Amino acid sequence: MNNRDYILNEAKQWVIEAGKLIKSEMQKPYKIDTKRDRKDLVTEIDKNTEQFFVDHITKRYPDHKILGEEGMGEEVHSLDGTVWIIDPIDGTMNFVHQQRFFAISVGIYHDGVGEIGLIYDVMNDTMYEGIKGEGAYKDGEKLAPIDPNKTLSDALVGLNNFWAIPNRRLDERKIHDLVRKVKGTRSYGSAALEFAYIAEGIIDAYITMRLQPWDIAAGKIIVDEVGGVTTRVDGSSIDMLTGNTVICSNKAIHESLMSFIQQK
Amino acid sequence: MNNRDYILNEAKQWVIEAGKLIKSEMQKPYKIDTKRDRKDLVTEIDKNTEQFFVDHITKRYPDHKILGEEGMGEEVHSLDGTVWIIDPIDGTMNFVHQQRFFAISVGIYHDGVGEIGLIYDVMNDTMYEGIKGEGAYKDGEKLAPIDPNKTLSDALVGLNNFWAIPNRRLDERKIHDLVRKVKGTRSYGSAALEFAYIAEGIIDAYITMRLQPWDIAAGKIIVDEVGGVTTRVDGSSIDMLTGNTVICSNKAIHESLMSFIQQK
Repeated sequence: MNNRDYILNEAKQWVIEAGKLIKSEMQKPYKIDTKRDRKDLVTEIDKNTEQFFVDHITKRYPDHKILGEEGMGEEVHSLDGTVWIIDPIDGTMNFVHQQRFFAISVGIYHDGVGEIGLIYDVMNDTMYEGIKGEGAYKDGEKLAPIDPNKTLSDALVGLNNFWAIPNRRLDERKIHDLVRKVKGTRSYGSAALEFAYIAEGIIDAYITMRLQPWDIAAGKIIVDEVGGVTTRVDGSSIDMLTGNTVICSNKAIHESLMSFIQQK
Repeated sequence: MNNRDYILNEAKQWVIEAGKLIKSEMQKPYKIDTKRDRKDLVTEIDKNTEQFFVDHITKRYPDHKILGEEGMGEEVHSLDGTVWIIDPIDGTMNFVHQQRFFAISVGIYHDGVGEIGLIYDVMNDTMYEGIKGEGAYKDGEKLAPIDPNKTLSDALVGLNNFWAIPNRRLDERKIHDLVRKVKGTRSYGSAALEFAYIAEGIIDAYITMRLQPWDIAAGKIIVDEVGGVTTRVDGSSIDMLTGNTVICSNKAIHESLMSFIQQK
């Protein structure tokens, strides 16, 4: 990708500006709607924030494409060229209910390759970034590689209760075995932050049966740069144009998690 | 209780000093042991921190009793007189694995009545306090009463995956129904912080089948002061001398949660 450093700096500036906008708008009353179901929230602040990115990107980089959660960009049917994959507020339910534990997530892909990943924990003013081949950073400090020797029985795993109860995506008894096996489970309600937490070693794995590209795009790049692996639960590559199951962790735990999910 | 304000200020000072000790000791290598099982961790820092409180309390208040997680105080068989109920590091697994999301929890009871509750989020340097009849505070700012009108279907509930899988304490299918009913579940791995989060409205309820007095003692006082209710799952009072099941939330959600758990 040409001008990657330039784009990186500009993207970071926009993310920080967007964070300020969110912080300011959340002080005033705002409209909350639901999307697919009553648990799938969207606010006008999500939409305004995505529009902020769309405006800046289309003005500065008219040939780039934008795939955003709220659909304010054009429809994106391929990853050819440069594609910004954006979740303006990842963890909207946390945003609405907690006013914390949410993040702006921006992944920049070029011809299908993840080049830049930014996850910005707005309320903590903490920036996670991943730059393909250069490393991952938290507030400018390089993150160490995650421990390659940690195994599943020693792992704290990001896992929503939703997958431990009967559901359409997998036999929940596999998850029950998993919960017994691991050291503990945690659930924070923001996929982007869960990827960031893996990158800094706060949790060791994340497993879910349903994530959209904008939930994953930045996180995968950041985790790649600290030696982690992010795939679908069958081990196949994430498709950044559609919904995915996801396992993210170091290689050893990734293997174990796949075995758990693939057991008959 | 005589001298409550004086004791409050002294307790707060000790908690902050203990937090500094923890932060300093966690920079160096320290010993980690397990207690009842491989998931029940204790470090020498837990023990040193409890000893710090025991030393200060016994010197200053020789007639007070101390009930601590690590058993560094005397055995406590009644709540007569003044009893300090202390968890030096609530969320030891988080402390070890995450170096965040843990808290010092100190509840001070007089003749069985909770007078002072302190929960100190060490890494965020955030002090939650509850003073019976005077209110609850976060970093000195008074916390508003929790929303009495929020209902279960609108609630974010602190719930560990452990209770959603087959377990000895309750029929997990009740929890499955609960997970479907609520807005979402979260799991942070520190009971004390989950009480504090309820007090500030970050989550709306917390339910668990197994907590010790030191996990509850401070949190209950703080939540009481913002209009919340903390009981066992059958509605009976928490016993601060033994293990308890716990439901904590506003009155409306508390009723609903009890119905869920008590259904046949």
